[in-house]
Amino acid sequence: MRQHYHEQLEEVSRYLVEMSRLVETAMERATRALLNADLQLAESVISDDEAINALAQRVEDECVSIIALQQPVASELRAIVGALRMCATLERMGDLAAHIAKQARLRHPGMSIPTELRATFSMMGAIATSVVQKVAGVLDTRNLELAAGVALADDEMDRLHRELFTTVLSSSWTHGVEAAIDVTLLSRFYERFADHGVSIARRIAYIVTGELPTKSELAENA
Amino acid sequence: MRQHYHEQLEEVSRYLVEMSRLVETAMERATRALLNADLQLAESVISDDEAINALAQRVEDECVSIIALQQPVASELRAIVGALRMCATLERMGDLAAHIAKQARLRHPGMSIPTELRATFSMMGAIATSVVQKVAGVLDTRNLELAAGVALADDEMDRLHRELFTTVLSSSWTHGVEAAIDVTLLSRFYERFADHGVSIARRIAYIVTGELPTKSELAENA
Repeated sequence: MRQHYHEQLEEVSRYLVEMSRLVETAMERATRALLNADLQLAESVISDDEAINALAQRVEDECVSIIALQQPVASELRAIVGALRMCATLERMGDLAAHIAKQARLRHPGMSIPTELRATFSMMGAIATSVVQKVAGVLDTRNLELAAGVALADDEMDRLHRELFTTVLSSSWTHGVEAAIDVTLLSRFYERFADHGVSIARRIAYIVTGELPTKSELAENA
Repeated sequence: MRQHYHEQLEEVSRYLVEMSRLVETAMERATRALLNADLQLAESVISDDEAINALAQRVEDECVSIIALQQPVASELRAIVGALRMCATLERMGDLAAHIAKQARLRHPGMSIPTELRATFSMMGAIATSVVQKVAGVLDTRNLELAAGVALADDEMDRLHRELFTTVLSSSWTHGVEAAIDVTLLSRFYERFADHGVSIARRIAYIVTGELPTKSELAENA
């Protein structure tokens, strides 16, 4: 019975890593769709979000089945409840990638972002992708050094997010209200995405150490 | 043992209702702070968000303790896992109320919204407050007619959200980029808030009927 139990727990872990990989792909492709006004790519990100949601449902079912059949002890339960939360967060990260793709679709064949901001969004996409890549690594290995990397990447994302705000509000902004709103919403999607990555990294640190670290405590593991 | 068990389950339910009431107060006060540029009120919404988060942690601990001590059967487990999810969603709704208060604080002593949009935001605040009020009722009574009301209120919120987009993008918009961004972000907070309410109403319908309804299926119970 206990043997099967640990197999089930490992399966949940594998599902979460798999979800992270799907979210990583979604984010990488959503950014590419945005930067190249690529409608087909945007559509595929939007429709592939279903697979992430379906996997989330499977994780939830699996967790319920473990609890029902195996009567885990309190510390194991914390891990399972943590998995449920992380799974909901990964689902939300997938939604944010889909939001970015929807924005690209909305403005197609035009661009959602002015040319001079392409580099910034390209960087935000790269940071977001690296955040969820590290999250997959932390889920897989419980390596808290990787978790620290998530916190540091989030700092960089916050910096870019603030920079974009300054840009659209400066007197030299010539692209009008609609483009300013597009840029602000997109920037917020990336920033929220990284925040969610931090929340997963903190949860894993909690499961490993028994203490829920703040973001700056998490960064100290670097 | 089973007696104590049902008491524990009811306690979780009571906590969720209590969380909804706190979120309702937060949303009502955040809207008032926004409409009146009331800094003190905004500060209190922001600091009171801690109490909502603390209650969320207590619900999570309570759920873990029920599962650990009582070995609930599968259908009961579904309800407990549902409670965990709803609790995370209510926490997020509290965050959104705090986001609105932070926006009011950011522009103080100025206003975040132009005078001619006060009526719209006042309406959005009233709808948001009624959504979470209905959510508390659904949590308390499992009455699916109330759940239908949540879906209908969300439709109205979506309509106002779209209307605001049209307003800030129209050629008659004279308040500049910053105000357009403020309005867009605020409008999104209200719209997301109502979405979360719908997701809780759908979860409860699932616990009651065994089927997870779409939003329009939920509205059919009206």
